[in-house]
Amino acid sequence: MDREDTIRRLKNVEGHVRGIQRMVDNEAYCVDIIRQIQAVQAALGKISENILNDHLHSCLITAVRGENPEERERVLKEIAEVYSMASKV
Amino acid sequence: MDREDTIRRLKNVEGHVRGIQRMVDNEAYCVDIIRQIQAVQAALGKISENILNDHLHSCLITAVRGENPEERERVLKEIAEVYSMASKV
Amino acid sequence: MDREDTIRRLKNVEGHVRGIQRMVDNEAYCVDIIRQIQAVQAALGKISENILNDHLHSCLITAVRGENPEERERVLKEIAEVYSMASKV
Amino acid sequence: MDREDTIRRLKNVEGHVRGIQRMVDNEAYCVDIIRQIQAVQAALGKISENILNDHLHSCLITAVRGENPEERERVLKEIAEVYSMASKV
Repeated sequence: MDREDTIRRLKNVEGHVRGIQRMVDNEAYCVDIIRQIQAVQAALGKISENILNDHLHSCLITAVRGENPEERERVLKEIAEVYSMASKV
Repeated sequence: MDREDTIRRLKNVEGHVRGIQRMVDNEAYCVDIIRQIQAVQAALGKISENILNDHLHSCLITAVRGENPEERERVLKEIAEVYSMASKV
Repeated sequence: MDREDTIRRLKNVEGHVRGIQRMVDNEAYCVDIIRQIQAVQAALGKISENILNDHLHSCLITAVRGENPEERERVLKEIAEVYSMASKV
Repeated sequence: MDREDTIRRLKNVEGHVRGIQRMVDNEAYCVDIIRQIQAVQAALGKISENILNDHLHSCLITAVRGENPEERERVLKEIAEVYSMASKV
């Protein structure tokens, strides 16, 4: 994983969330707050896509090529699970 | 893939969609129609999860263990893409 | 609601779902099937957006302007519920 | 809106995001990081549902009962828009 890029994106998200707290404090318009929350959700989605992509190119390859069928099954199952969850958050 | 199970689920979806057409024809309450549409979307999500799971246990394993790096890269990229799309539909 | 347009879109979805059944029957590539399922989910999302939009401009206005507070509360609660569900399917 | 509750939830999200940064720094397992990101997305979804609910019971009622058709149309259109976006983030 490009750790630095991920950290930078997460710091942006953190700052964005603080900005939303200020909007709520300042009694900003509800819909503007909702839009900012949705923007943060989208940014988080992009981060998880990047992490999954790196995971596929490292851990997954290792597990699938490895000799341990339980380890392989675990890794494949995890990918199916995060795919399932992706559409529910 | 358990082809028969997938076909059966898709036939259920098809029947469900025809039922929604009748609801619209009969001027059913808007919110009830929306709820049925959301139920169909969830059923389709479940079908795609099953197909992805089978894909991971067949094509993916073949590609990752195979000798063709381009084929492997293509398969990994596809999984990242359907994961990305899962949260956007 | 533009009933004819909604019916037409639902018929397209129905045909699309039958097409996916044929893909499964013909042993099409898993990822191509998943992509078609995601396309159907997106088309259904668009239909429910249109129906919600019409609902807001008809039933909602009637309920909010009406004299029945329970009816109004019911309609507002339903909108909050379908909003909540929209992100989970 | 219950402003204090919303602020408290957003502070929890902020802390959660900082925790994810530490996970990335400490080279935590990719899938565990993705799961935590999905949990934050779900928490944000819950916050936006609460804000929408309050919005429906305040601004929306005012706009629909008011004398300004453009204002009413704007508010209804915004709700349709955030509904549409909810399924895409």
